[in-house]
Amino acid sequence: MEERAAPRRVVIVGGGFAGLFAARALRRSPVAVTVVDRRAHHLFQPLLYQCAAGILSEGQIAQPLRGLLRRHRNATCLLAEATDVDAGARLVHARRPDGTALTLPYDDLIVAVGMRQSYFGHGEFAAHAPGMKSLDDALHIRRRLYQAFEMAETAADAAERQQWLTFALVGGGPTGVELAGQIREIAGHTLDREFRTIDSARARVLLFEGSDEVLGSFGRPLAARAARTLHGLGVEVHLGTRVTGIDAQGLTVQDKDGATTRFDARTVLWTAGVEAPPIAAALARATGAAQDRAGRLAVQPDLTLPGHPEIHVTGDVMSLRRLPGLAEVAMQTGAYAGRAVRHRAAGGTKQQKPFRYLDLGSAAYICRGKAVVKVGRTHLSGLAGWLVWLFVHLAFLTGFRSRLGAMLSWSIVFASGSRRERAFPMSDAGGPPSSAAPAKA
Amino acid sequence: MEERAAPRRVVIVGGGFAGLFAARALRRSPVAVTVVDRRAHHLFQPLLYQCAAGILSEGQIAQPLRGLLRRHRNATCLLAEATDVDAGARLVHARRPDGTALTLPYDDLIVAVGMRQSYFGHGEFAAHAPGMKSLDDALHIRRRLYQAFEMAETAADAAERQQWLTFALVGGGPTGVELAGQIREIAGHTLDREFRTIDSARARVLLFEGSDEVLGSFGRPLAARAARTLHGLGVEVHLGTRVTGIDAQGLTVQDKDGATTRFDARTVLWTAGVEAPPIAAALARATGAAQDRAGRLAVQPDLTLPGHPEIHVTGDVMSLRRLPGLAEVAMQTGAYAGRAVRHRAAGGTKQQKPFRYLDLGSAAYICRGKAVVKVGRTHLSGLAGWLVWLFVHLAFLTGFRSRLGAMLSWSIVFASGSRRERAFPMSDAGGPPSSAAPAKA
Repeated sequence: MEERAAPRRVVIVGGGFAGLFAARALRRSPVAVTVVDRRAHHLFQPLLYQCAAGILSEGQIAQPLRGLLRRHRNATCLLAEATDVDAGARLVHARRPDGTALTLPYDDLIVAVGMRQSYFGHGEFAAHAPGMKSLDDALHIRRRLYQAFEMAETAADAAERQQWLTFALVGGGPTGVELAGQIREIAGHTLDREFRTIDSARARVLLFEGSDEVLGSFGRPLAARAARTLHGLGVEVHLGTRVTGIDAQGLTVQDKDGATTRFDARTVLWTAGVEAPPIAAALARATGAAQDRAGRLAVQPDLTLPGHPEIHVTGDVMSLRRLPGLAEVAMQTGAYAGRAVRHRAAGGTKQQKPFRYLDLGSAAYICRGKAVVKVGRTHLSGLAGWLVWLFVHLAFLTGFRSRLGAMLSWSIVFASGSRRERAFPMSDAGGPPSSAAPAKA
Repeated sequence: MEERAAPRRVVIVGGGFAGLFAARALRRSPVAVTVVDRRAHHLFQPLLYQCAAGILSEGQIAQPLRGLLRRHRNATCLLAEATDVDAGARLVHARRPDGTALTLPYDDLIVAVGMRQSYFGHGEFAAHAPGMKSLDDALHIRRRLYQAFEMAETAADAAERQQWLTFALVGGGPTGVELAGQIREIAGHTLDREFRTIDSARARVLLFEGSDEVLGSFGRPLAARAARTLHGLGVEVHLGTRVTGIDAQGLTVQDKDGATTRFDARTVLWTAGVEAPPIAAALARATGAAQDRAGRLAVQPDLTLPGHPEIHVTGDVMSLRRLPGLAEVAMQTGAYAGRAVRHRAAGGTKQQKPFRYLDLGSAAYICRGKAVVKVGRTHLSGLAGWLVWLFVHLAFLTGFRSRLGAMLSWSIVFASGSRRERAFPMSDAGGPPSSAAPAKA
């Protein structure tokens, strides 16, 4: 009797866009795939702000990983957080939610852990200014946003009322801009005529950005248009500012001349930076790989770590030719790594062509009917940008049902301002979720 | 110039069914209505278990109170928890979410605070066996249910696996029965073929009930049918049992002969009893009103407290002729109290007819296509019961959009077992939400 070799073991750490696309590329390959993630769901991160803003439900943007991989006969999903890698013995060490350990042997390792919020060394900011990376963050921010108006309605005096009606956003990237637009729309449109004491439409939204433009990654012409749109929406944009302090009542910023200004705001949200989760440093130690300033792992042109052709690093946590942290990059690098492993599992020995990013463009939604879109040299803004944004997001949302539901939710919020998902849990009322806390590496 | 008298001030404590229906009865009355609730949303409590079970989203069963009352020109909503009543000075003392105080003067007071979970003096059970009264509870239970299967998949050995695959429910009323049915359906239908190591369909569901039947309030014939349906679903029903201990690994129960048995189960949910929130005891102290064993306030036939014609008590927290804690009773008593205040505000002095409950029946959903319904002497079960259940719940869900959404979600889960709202936050991973904790009166 012929002995059948055990299938090659592929461990994929992380079930975001990169991890999911890697698993999909391996679907018909004779390997045993294990996807390990500290969440049980795959999150459609580009729409997370819409969950925070009360337009979409958690289930509309997050689907069970094992549901998505149900028909992948060769794939197993495990709920655990990878904590360390033994690159010599080829083992991933992980921790289950109850704290117990799990050890996963691999022949190929695909790292797709993404990035987490960074406070640039100011971990103490996290307690007052939650980030926007997980479902927990989104639900926490949803409560903070809607509860701020409730607190304003019952405020003891005008000064307190104004503090509750002031929202500060730190970071002028897509998430900050999208949240700024959402808050102005909630204030002026969704909450219209719901309050008796306050005029919700007079809520101030302050956006602080360190560089000299918002949405800098979209290039100067679109950045300027976005700034004009934000201005028209009533968002107060403060460029060239650096946050030096945050507390429960507001924040202090420093401009380029070194002058500091205090802003009172009971709601401060942080979208300013990202850093690699601790597993990246563990991998760097285990393999000698280099990390950039944010902790991203420097990879070779074929996305492997130097000296470790069996370890691919993909998605946001990968550092290669300054590729941006976009869903599209994560999908393409994940699929690339999956195909590379598939080739080898099929007995192939051909050297893979270096990874090449196909830039399909990027988009940011600002407010109803207005978005900026950049595809190569083509720039779109206003309604045209919004229509492209709509088409792209519907196309990429996973599953017909999610598309239909999102379409319905968008139609209603666009037409009437009404948002269905305004209910929020109170159980985190004591502070932001632990996921907002900076890495304790 | 004629001086206009300030409008009569009506404070409604609680925005559940009773409070909402009281406010609605007062819509065109020349009074100033203030609805104060510790949640910003009105919760459609009868479908809370479907939010926990991943069928409906929070927004499908909970709507902003102030949104529901937006067109009530005379109504104001405040987010605060009533803590005390000064019946002499006619003041409600309340606490805002940040702990600061709020004082609300009233001419008429309508108490509609509902009930909370009771552990019958065993507050220590709450840490291991969450209750099912709030959105926080539902999201916590959603995580516990789905995560239990995840933990079983990665269990270290067969014993631990079986513990994770055993679900114990304490309390054989509608909520306990509905949850039991949901867990069996999730195990056998929704999770079908998603796991590789475990067979989710083999999950055990244990239902513990102190009396000698489940759904006792539906009468013996329907209770017997419900028991048969549960048996057919694979739910193990343990009647005449009293829980004497609960820990993270399971529970100990005592039968009527005093014999104790230990059951290993990593998930224990508690739906066994209710108790009045602390404000009921405060009211009893302030007015001399009597409380029943669960803390409900004894009212006169016109729902006022003895000696206080200006204080109506409505809904679950009211004790009157053993009326059950049903949504229908809450709606009718709330509307009755609202009409009484309206009559007086219009200058009427007629003695109101005593409150009469019009029994429109009650219903409990057991599983797909099976429910029990009791309307007067008419008993329905199986598919006929389910159709009536469907019709009634669609009719009472607030708003067209909620109805459409729920209808769609039910069609899909009925046809394919697929549940959209399976994503859960992790931030309460340390334990149940504070709302599950018993009152610290």
